[in-house]
Amino acid sequence: MTSPFSIGIIQDLADQDPAANLARATRLIREATARGAQIICLKELFNAPYFCKAQHADRFDLAEPIPGPTTDALQTLAKELEVVLVVPLFERQGPGVYRNSAAVIDADGSLMGVYRKMHIPDDPLFYEKYYFTPGDGPSPAGSPLSPEASGFKVWKTRYATIGVLICWDQWFPEGARLTAMQGAEILVYPTAIGWHPAEKATHGEHQQAAWETMQRSHAIANGCFVVAVNRVGFEPDPSSSGKPQAGIEFWGQSFIAAPDGRIVVRAPVEHEAVIVQEIDLAEIDASRIGWPFFRDRRIDAYAEITKRFGDGD
Amino acid sequence: MTSPFSIGIIQDLADQDPAANLARATRLIREATARGAQIICLKELFNAPYFCKAQHADRFDLAEPIPGPTTDALQTLAKELEVVLVVPLFERQGPGVYRNSAAVIDADGSLMGVYRKMHIPDDPLFYEKYYFTPGDGPSPAGSPLSPEASGFKVWKTRYATIGVLICWDQWFPEGARLTAMQGAEILVYPTAIGWHPAEKATHGEHQQAAWETMQRSHAIANGCFVVAVNRVGFEPDPSSSGKPQAGIEFWGQSFIAAPDGRIVVRAPVEHEAVIVQEIDLAEIDASRIGWPFFRDRRIDAYAEITKRFGDGD
Repeated sequence: MTSPFSIGIIQDLADQDPAANLARATRLIREATARGAQIICLKELFNAPYFCKAQHADRFDLAEPIPGPTTDALQTLAKELEVVLVVPLFERQGPGVYRNSAAVIDADGSLMGVYRKMHIPDDPLFYEKYYFTPGDGPSPAGSPLSPEASGFKVWKTRYATIGVLICWDQWFPEGARLTAMQGAEILVYPTAIGWHPAEKATHGEHQQAAWETMQRSHAIANGCFVVAVNRVGFEPDPSSSGKPQAGIEFWGQSFIAAPDGRIVVRAPVEHEAVIVQEIDLAEIDASRIGWPFFRDRRIDAYAEITKRFGDGD
Repeated sequence: MTSPFSIGIIQDLADQDPAANLARATRLIREATARGAQIICLKELFNAPYFCKAQHADRFDLAEPIPGPTTDALQTLAKELEVVLVVPLFERQGPGVYRNSAAVIDADGSLMGVYRKMHIPDDPLFYEKYYFTPGDGPSPAGSPLSPEASGFKVWKTRYATIGVLICWDQWFPEGARLTAMQGAEILVYPTAIGWHPAEKATHGEHQQAAWETMQRSHAIANGCFVVAVNRVGFEPDPSSSGKPQAGIEFWGQSFIAAPDGRIVVRAPVEHEAVIVQEIDLAEIDASRIGWPFFRDRRIDAYAEITKRFGDGD
């Protein structure tokens, strides 16, 4: 592996035309590559509007299999450009089994695998539990299902070992930890997060700060890089067109955090951006020697973390 | 329980005289109480200099049992003032078994129990593995040892349910999670953290930011309050008196973070301070409804968190 090397972030928007969205992503990937990016990450559900703003059965038509036409096209592109691509897609795994997924394509164009979002949100304007089957937990021993199909995981790409988690996953320290423990040098979080118009004035600043803070904490706690790739721009909710301001203002501000938690680069809040940033993987070992958290984890005392909650009161 | 209510933070220093340190703490606790504080937290190893800067067998003389003279005195004070006290002490549990502990005293003066630091650091100027036996993990079923003696835990005090963790624990999301899952409304982190003179210029800003970021992330991920109580001021290392700048500059900046991660109050970097801050426990449920992370934890997929690390390479 070569280090330092460069990460590329495509912070963009998407409209109703999947072909146009793929064409835009292709153009921006070529731009990032021309500027030196070697691992390039797209936003969550990259080739569609964030359709989960409302529950509509016809939106399942946006899904496609992995491998499928979109990953085929991007595998060809990855091979041509010799870049690693993280491609978040609405995946149709089978009839009635739809996932919020991300395909990982190596720099030789091979499809390395797919991560399926483990933590699925469900809030006003984010109706994801309607659309997505959560990623599966570990298969029991002896299961005929491939262990590669489930859970938190990493891929040893040509340039670095990366783990992929998706959006809501970013609020759960467990997901970051379990991915880092498998050797991830970079945690990639394709994301679609923004302000609800009714909340922006009162809570918007704290919401964005909390989002960034949580992901910086994953970098610190796990001594690795975090790459957050967000959507940008306002998307109206088509089902609520009669209401003023109905929709989501995606807050951009994609960023890279280093193992010491510092923000290396941050994209703008309101504009499409292609970020290309050199990072040095040697920072990982240096950070973990300076802050040896893995040395001191109390693994004898963590078993209860598989419980839901205590008794409370 | 009454809410809103007020938290008190005693951010101070300590010199070589334990009696003077107790007298100072008593005076500052009275001041905090006069200003309305109901749960008052002292810094890590409150009644001694941070003696772990070097390995000296005679410093074990600083330890005392719990209950012991210091907790006796502070139980009397707590009863008189009707305040809850978190009292971090160097505990002598028995011959050769010394702990970095915190006693919890309820507002009626009763000693509710003791937390024993689970994650023990060991770095230049922080030689804690020499002095402290780590807090024990959970006792196996049928053990004659009291389960109350070990692990992560909470106390239902008169004013709130609090969990106590100590300093290095603050870097481990697992400890915060396991304490919050038991119902903690407030996570208290008595701390002794500062700048190593050789590192302050190059790393100091990022180190302090990382420290604050990690603890804010515990507030966010667990939808609870976090109260960090740090030591302040420069302490020379007596064993290194010949070297310029040998010692630790404790960076103060004790703070309270709300469940949405915002910093409610932050103490100064260089001065002793008594912080009294009203907080509203109703923010906890509001935050957890807005960000329902406990709803969505993938407890079926977290078992591997009890492993040390993957194969890596």
